[in-house]
Amino acid sequence: MKTPVGIVGFRGYGGQELIRILSRHPRVEIVLLDHRSDSEQRPMPKNHSGPRRAATSEAHQLGLAVVFLATPHEVAMELTPELLHSGAKVVDLSAAFRLRTPDVHERWYKEPHTNAALLHEAAYGLPEFYREKIKPARLIANPGCYPTAANIAIAPLIEAGIVNLDAGIICDAKSGVSGAGRKPSLKTSFCEANENFSAYSILMHRHVPEVLQNSGIEESQFSFTAQLLPVNRGILETIYFRAKGVKSAADIVDLYEKRYHGEPFVRVFEPGKAPDLMHVQHTNFCDLGVTLDPATGRAVVVSAIDNLVKGAAGQAVQNMNLILGYPETESLL
Amino acid sequence: MKTPVGIVGFRGYGGQELIRILSRHPRVEIVLLDHRSDSEQRPMPKNHSGPRRAATSEAHQLGLAVVFLATPHEVAMELTPELLHSGAKVVDLSAAFRLRTPDVHERWYKEPHTNAALLHEAAYGLPEFYREKIKPARLIANPGCYPTAANIAIAPLIEAGIVNLDAGIICDAKSGVSGAGRKPSLKTSFCEANENFSAYSILMHRHVPEVLQNSGIEESQFSFTAQLLPVNRGILETIYFRAKGVKSAADIVDLYEKRYHGEPFVRVFEPGKAPDLMHVQHTNFCDLGVTLDPATGRAVVVSAIDNLVKGAAGQAVQNMNLILGYPETESLL
Amino acid sequence: MKTPVGIVGFRGYGGQELIRILSRHPRVEIVLLDHRSDSEQRPMPKNHSGPRRAATSEAHQLGLAVVFLATPHEVAMELTPELLHSGAKVVDLSAAFRLRTPDVHERWYKEPHTNAALLHEAAYGLPEFYREKIKPARLIANPGCYPTAANIAIAPLIEAGIVNLDAGIICDAKSGVSGAGRKPSLKTSFCEANENFSAYSILMHRHVPEVLQNSGIEESQFSFTAQLLPVNRGILETIYFRAKGVKSAADIVDLYEKRYHGEPFVRVFEPGKAPDLMHVQHTNFCDLGVTLDPATGRAVVVSAIDNLVKGAAGQAVQNMNLILGYPETESLL
Amino acid sequence: MKTPVGIVGFRGYGGQELIRILSRHPRVEIVLLDHRSDSEQRPMPKNHSGPRRAATSEAHQLGLAVVFLATPHEVAMELTPELLHSGAKVVDLSAAFRLRTPDVHERWYKEPHTNAALLHEAAYGLPEFYREKIKPARLIANPGCYPTAANIAIAPLIEAGIVNLDAGIICDAKSGVSGAGRKPSLKTSFCEANENFSAYSILMHRHVPEVLQNSGIEESQFSFTAQLLPVNRGILETIYFRAKGVKSAADIVDLYEKRYHGEPFVRVFEPGKAPDLMHVQHTNFCDLGVTLDPATGRAVVVSAIDNLVKGAAGQAVQNMNLILGYPETESLL
Repeated sequence: MKTPVGIVGFRGYGGQELIRILSRHPRVEIVLLDHRSDSEQRPMPKNHSGPRRAATSEAHQLGLAVVFLATPHEVAMELTPELLHSGAKVVDLSAAFRLRTPDVHERWYKEPHTNAALLHEAAYGLPEFYREKIKPARLIANPGCYPTAANIAIAPLIEAGIVNLDAGIICDAKSGVSGAGRKPSLKTSFCEANENFSAYSILMHRHVPEVLQNSGIEESQFSFTAQLLPVNRGILETIYFRAKGVKSAADIVDLYEKRYHGEPFVRVFEPGKAPDLMHVQHTNFCDLGVTLDPATGRAVVVSAIDNLVKGAAGQAVQNMNLILGYPETESLL
Repeated sequence: MKTPVGIVGFRGYGGQELIRILSRHPRVEIVLLDHRSDSEQRPMPKNHSGPRRAATSEAHQLGLAVVFLATPHEVAMELTPELLHSGAKVVDLSAAFRLRTPDVHERWYKEPHTNAALLHEAAYGLPEFYREKIKPARLIANPGCYPTAANIAIAPLIEAGIVNLDAGIICDAKSGVSGAGRKPSLKTSFCEANENFSAYSILMHRHVPEVLQNSGIEESQFSFTAQLLPVNRGILETIYFRAKGVKSAADIVDLYEKRYHGEPFVRVFEPGKAPDLMHVQHTNFCDLGVTLDPATGRAVVVSAIDNLVKGAAGQAVQNMNLILGYPETESLL
Repeated sequence: MKTPVGIVGFRGYGGQELIRILSRHPRVEIVLLDHRSDSEQRPMPKNHSGPRRAATSEAHQLGLAVVFLATPHEVAMELTPELLHSGAKVVDLSAAFRLRTPDVHERWYKEPHTNAALLHEAAYGLPEFYREKIKPARLIANPGCYPTAANIAIAPLIEAGIVNLDAGIICDAKSGVSGAGRKPSLKTSFCEANENFSAYSILMHRHVPEVLQNSGIEESQFSFTAQLLPVNRGILETIYFRAKGVKSAADIVDLYEKRYHGEPFVRVFEPGKAPDLMHVQHTNFCDLGVTLDPATGRAVVVSAIDNLVKGAAGQAVQNMNLILGYPETESLL
Repeated sequence: MKTPVGIVGFRGYGGQELIRILSRHPRVEIVLLDHRSDSEQRPMPKNHSGPRRAATSEAHQLGLAVVFLATPHEVAMELTPELLHSGAKVVDLSAAFRLRTPDVHERWYKEPHTNAALLHEAAYGLPEFYREKIKPARLIANPGCYPTAANIAIAPLIEAGIVNLDAGIICDAKSGVSGAGRKPSLKTSFCEANENFSAYSILMHRHVPEVLQNSGIEESQFSFTAQLLPVNRGILETIYFRAKGVKSAADIVDLYEKRYHGEPFVRVFEPGKAPDLMHVQHTNFCDLGVTLDPATGRAVVVSAIDNLVKGAAGQAVQNMNLILGYPETESLL
């Protein structure tokens, strides 16, 4: 018998991707949980039944092992306590429980956090760094899309002490439009985003603190720009720093390969080569490429993910696999 | 001294295109007329003053020779009487005054027309067919984008009697997303329109009656499908019919060349060749290409325009040039 | 032990899609067969080994159960005899063996067919119509992408006798750019195809005879236009005809549902609704939607597939599943 | 009588843009100069005569005041001496004469420069910096697209001494695909560039030395990445540095406004706002936006141009206007 798992927010892009991935999962059965904040539905073929449906309020009776929240963070904050109370574990794709302390949350989200206890309890769902904390957790804060690509690229460099932090780290990030969600807005209208490219939240994007708390660097050492790319999906981050103590791009490639040895979803390119979005779209991979000028230490790392997969639904399923004791890569390769 | 002309709805795509075209016009000065239905504004460079601004209600005092209405048709219906009363002539880019009789309007727009007198007075602003009616008119109903491309292609064929009307005329129309306006909606969101293509209003698009009343064919003889193309601008219509009394594509090319001799904005391709969107984007041209199988009479005409230029703002300026006695092509070549 | 199957032309878009689909197939193991006509390779992550490699000339020793040919049709014509001789069955994605007689092939491909015996032997790989001929065949001619969408929509209408053939059938077809293959050309360059839309091979596309021979209609009754859509993948065909003997769109929807009862890859929409490309991209489905004006019999069927899946690699795997006795939907849902 | 000016390479994207701009210029008449390296032509409407045609070898007899070279730099190097000898002035859009010394050229272009005398003579055609050198010059080296956006943003910061050069300057540059030229290649194929984004020539793009020689910074202080954006046209550069001696973004905005006072083609946004591609497409503007964190000095400047206009043909016409003594903005606003 298959294990029932719920999805709230299943009509958004993250929710749709969860359905796509979990439909191939041999051990779970999806239950779509209707919720008042749901977005508009698309017409579907006749007799295309799709997964089982229920109201979020019925979660108690359904015996759900895991509920995925693919909703705005305000909704996630509200629903999480009752879902946990129903006995389900929660994988929250929103930002509700990602930051470690209420004051950091309040500073970046401009509102007090209403549930500090759960904030402290939540495991940050980046398996490459917190696998052992994730496995026993009741509540997983699935990481932001930008921080996933940034943390996988940056943290090993900081751990290894090869970054000249006086010069800082620059992360020039570009995301496909699905990262902005499915709710219509002028900025994400076709004629405004197509044939266009624009920077936003320069130096003050809400995803910045997720990078700082994971890598241990200071805000003053990190410059981050988010940019809207006219593609449906994918994030590519071009990360600049001054390297010290390394002689070549190959040294950094080695460092990554050692750090991520055995990791199923991190891939590294030959020195001087870089991934593009096509390498990672529709996959759960994070791809890394390194270029270095040995004479001056100028270094560039390109990090690429699919924002809806490794940056959202794929990583959420990876976390579910860890929580439920399934093979970590199930339905993700 | 330049002649002042007003634009209501200047933040929409039609309005923006009017600004772009009229900014190059040597004889007119633009006044942007603020109106409550205005859409969101984009940030602009400092000191980029742009055209003069006024409230629509001030139109009386401004001595405007022409006012362009680039608004929803409900707004156009409401504003037109007072603007005419102020002494301005009105070029209405909406559908408010395009159909000749209130009952046809009511059938397609599902609401009674509130001003039948103006409906009868309005000149249909397709200069290639109604130039002499346009020149003295107070009120111009600027044609719809789809009908402009369709009428220029179809009417000469009907006039010449070379269409087997028993088999009907098929018009398979594709439009860039700007045709749907600037107001955000799910359907015109980037992630829904990009990498997608969809048919809508199959057999019952509101632009159909503009083709029927101009060409004299019956609804039963005309099948029209509108389709959303993932480009910002441009309309391409693929028009199918059975030809009679012609021996080759060249015969139809000749027919078009004779009909449009001296017309500055209609271009015809060699037999067997067809225009694409790039040929007409950012221009006021309507380009026509003809293919014919002489053995069976199967004929295909491709008609292409820029929906924002010949399909809206460019044709509106062409009409203004006619009304004000300027060279018809001024600022349009 | 897994069954080895070969792919020639694995760097093209069809070949890449075969790899993607077959990688999830539990019963087969891929062998990539290098061939002199191969296109340029993309950089890949280190240690991303990918499938086994061999030379096409080694096919004999590899004991391949099936070889997929995702090559130009000239290459397929040359390789097929030796591959069959090696004991492999061949699923040919090219046009080499699709037409039933050498003279029809010669008329449309402007060159004599060099292997009439195999032409007669080949099964046309459209399972919804030829399933029982496909199962025992040595050589499958995988259908063209345009004809797959057209045949599934049109053939049941002809069989049921509800088309007024005097008025003919119009098929206005639009395809994503991957349909043109991976070899660089001006027409498929980004700046020429992006923000553009163009018709080509009007009334004389090479895929036309595949529709005629499957549906039994005459060339004089069928007008087909191919058009290049600025998306990577997907085909949408808007099909026009005059219906007789039916009272509503629902009648035609019923007809399709009966004809395709039990077919896993054909889906039908509610009357008056139509599929778009997003409904079928990355799937093996063919989706159908019907609109009808009962008063006049004007009918429009929208048929949509993914040109690389149901229009190429997915249908090829469906055929392989039939040949090898696997569940027909294996790795395709 | 209009002044005749020639264009070599008129079928490429730069050449087509020159035609578009110069067609509106009231004082010049275009002569298209055929050359053996020409790319494929598109079908055109009948009777659309277009500009006068001649062979490049006839330039002597035509009395051309200026010849634009929109060709590969090898062709420009070969043609320039004879064109100058014919009495024409040359505006070269290629990289043939942009770098000041043969050794720098050789280092970045991997081949010896064949005409050092002309290299020394050429004026670098960035009017905002070299207007007085451009006016009397016989040979203008029209700047590269990337360096135009970078130099206009960076040089005033260096001049004012507000950049902490120890931390270096990062220029993360993104360009539309037309920047790669019209010659078909796999990288610029629709299906490879669309829905994709990729970095190339990381730290070693040939446009880097144009920034160094104009701003006076060292290669070790400048990290530049070029990236391919899935749009037809436009460049956006996100430029990072550590500011010193300034208290706010407004200080830097002021600095730019003073430096570019009276410049017709440089626009500056309010502090904290940034231009996007739509602001500059189809215009000759370079738009600048500044964000600064006063606490730490982290600064981000966004610089945007249209690569085909200010980055190529528009700037070339601006230079022509300077050479021929016409108003600098003629046909460019």
